[in-house]
Amino acid sequence: MTWTPTPEDDRRFLGLAIEQARESWEEGGVPIGAVLVHDGEVLAAGHNQRVQKGSAILHGETDAIERAGRLRASVYRESVLYTTLSPCIMCAGTALLYEIPRIVVGENRTFEMSESLLRERGVVVDVLDDPECIALMERMIAERPEIWSEDIGVETAELGR
Amino acid sequence: MTWTPTPEDDRRFLGLAIEQARESWEEGGVPIGAVLVHDGEVLAAGHNQRVQKGSAILHGETDAIERAGRLRASVYRESVLYTTLSPCIMCAGTALLYEIPRIVVGENRTFEMSESLLRERGVVVDVLDDPECIALMERMIAERPEIWSEDIGVETAELGR
Repeated sequence: MTWTPTPEDDRRFLGLAIEQARESWEEGGVPIGAVLVHDGEVLAAGHNQRVQKGSAILHGETDAIERAGRLRASVYRESVLYTTLSPCIMCAGTALLYEIPRIVVGENRTFEMSESLLRERGVVVDVLDDPECIALMERMIAERPEIWSEDIGVETAELGR
Repeated sequence: MTWTPTPEDDRRFLGLAIEQARESWEEGGVPIGAVLVHDGEVLAAGHNQRVQKGSAILHGETDAIERAGRLRASVYRESVLYTTLSPCIMCAGTALLYEIPRIVVGENRTFEMSESLLRERGVVVDVLDDPECIALMERMIAERPEIWSEDIGVETAELGR
């Protein structure tokens, strides 16, 4: 990869993921967004589609990857995935399948499921601990706990576990 | 789970996954299919949609899970996923997210990427070593190597690695 994102680039692309998350919340959905970036160019942005499309597999990250369409293996291997929330294991597995080398995470305080697996397998995971990402998830967990628990495969009663 | 599939049940549901794989091949696509079964009832069947829908994330397993729609966590935890080919790590991650307890695999000779991870995390993976599943993949790798390599995130030149 010739392109090396600066901290300012990271903030800017995370900002686009946050826009996606906000949009999803306003649509009544899960406020998690993601952006796939190759060589400084946004290939696609997406957000969780559980409510909007009744989807079980379109999380922020997988929606962005799906919207990017069919790509050569070499493109993924030079891309950065920006996501407002630390990836679940489905999204981590998707990044590992395509050998995306770096994931920039908005926050991992409200949810963290896969960072050790990603790092074990060589993915760079940088967590920005962004207050807006945390606030989006805290509101979600408080106001739409049933949808959130469904999205991560737990029963609502188990959310506090 | 009150339902315990017999070996005959496993063969029958794998047969439905094989039908999906054949259909996908005839459509010009990747011949991998899957079926999600709960309590003896098929919730959904699906197949790889890379060619048909230009999809990067709809593999056989994820297509079946997507077609099953929004489900309670407890339903996945009592389901069996039948797939003609050993799951890639994206599909394994999806099964782990939803805590699907058992995966029945048609074959793992032509591709195997996630079985150790699945078993480490408590998923029962049963491989039936089905000749038709092997034949479908061997024809794919011989006749459509570019699509197959794209589907598993490698460059065609790396297929033999």
